[in-house]
Amino acid sequence: LGGTSAVVDTEAMPTSAVSPEFPMDLQPLGQIQESFIVATNPEGLWIIDQHVAHERVLFERHRRQRQERKVEGQRLLLPNIVELHPEQQVTFRDIAEELAASGFEVELFGQRTVAVKTAPAGIAAPDVQRLLLEILDGVGPEASALSLETLQNRISASVACHAAIKVNTALDRSKMEWLLRELSKTECPMACPHGRPIVLKYSLKEIQRAFKRI
Amino acid sequence: LGGTSAVVDTEAMPTSAVSPEFPMDLQPLGQIQESFIVATNPEGLWIIDQHVAHERVLFERHRRQRQERKVEGQRLLLPNIVELHPEQQVTFRDIAEELAASGFEVELFGQRTVAVKTAPAGIAAPDVQRLLLEILDGVGPEASALSLETLQNRISASVACHAAIKVNTALDRSKMEWLLRELSKTECPMACPHGRPIVLKYSLKEIQRAFKRI
Repeated sequence: LGGTSAVVDTEAMPTSAVSPEFPMDLQPLGQIQESFIVATNPEGLWIIDQHVAHERVLFERHRRQRQERKVEGQRLLLPNIVELHPEQQVTFRDIAEELAASGFEVELFGQRTVAVKTAPAGIAAPDVQRLLLEILDGVGPEASALSLETLQNRISASVACHAAIKVNTALDRSKMEWLLRELSKTECPMACPHGRPIVLKYSLKEIQRAFKRI
Repeated sequence: LGGTSAVVDTEAMPTSAVSPEFPMDLQPLGQIQESFIVATNPEGLWIIDQHVAHERVLFERHRRQRQERKVEGQRLLLPNIVELHPEQQVTFRDIAEELAASGFEVELFGQRTVAVKTAPAGIAAPDVQRLLLEILDGVGPEASALSLETLQNRISASVACHAAIKVNTALDRSKMEWLLRELSKTECPMACPHGRPIVLKYSLKEIQRAFKRI
């Protein structure tokens, strides 16, 4: 009866073959540290990174809207003036048309500055400058060497990342349900546009095995 | 952007050194399959096997009450007549006194049968016979070779196992909170009287690592 005083760690809990399919019947239970959604269904326990999950939802939406030439833009109350380095200026000229089709309305404003009048939907005003510079720096001087699809995907990924729910954000049950439902409708619900995992799964079988129930 | 379509499995999530201490600040989020309580605190995610957790609580309570000679018995509406094999009869005679001190009131009833009039608190009437036979068979013919402490522990473990909440039982939030609180007060909250683990822990650090956040 000498119970060993040890928490079973997860090394004892290797998950066997898991389906790459994201289930439709997940019930959210709550959050870990207001960052990771804990959910369950008959298959077991699921942990979802709320930021990358939302990023995936927004990425696919932005890409789809771009293909249909219907990206939603949001007019800023005040134009956001952004200063560009010479290299950023070159890149900006190269991808200006693609930026316009991606929800940006940007005008040249003097020699080294641009005025952003409209940003993709969901981008908070203070974040507009950082997003634009991140896109320009990410593309760099090789804009013309990129395929249009690669360029569009990079822009969609950056927009999605900046518009997505952050970690350390409390979500009520209906928001968690909405996010899991939207995620289940995406083409690729298991990894974010940057390739990071969105979902961890602990199958019921592995949980039972860790508890020495099977 | 080619997101790999794979769920990260828990092999990628080995938990580093974990404290054998059971935290006082766990917030229950819900159940997996009405069997395992999912809870969280700033350290991360915890999964608690509700049956063995309750078993540990009841085991320590029964043992303590036995030591204080105050085990609670519950009078049965009708005496439960139990037939004993010859070997069980021998064991019964050997441990009759200890059974009486453990919450049983059992009388010889003919040659091969006993009548159970009172059972330890929390034991449902239909379960009384199974519990008594399990104790007798578990002790076997070596009753006199066992230390009193071993015998008492075995009886307490059997009583606790039969009285504990089963798996596949829905628990509301207040019941989960009660169980986690009671478990945190036990001397050995991490393993059940039979040595099975009660608690699995996934530290926040390991979750963040699995999501490639650190």
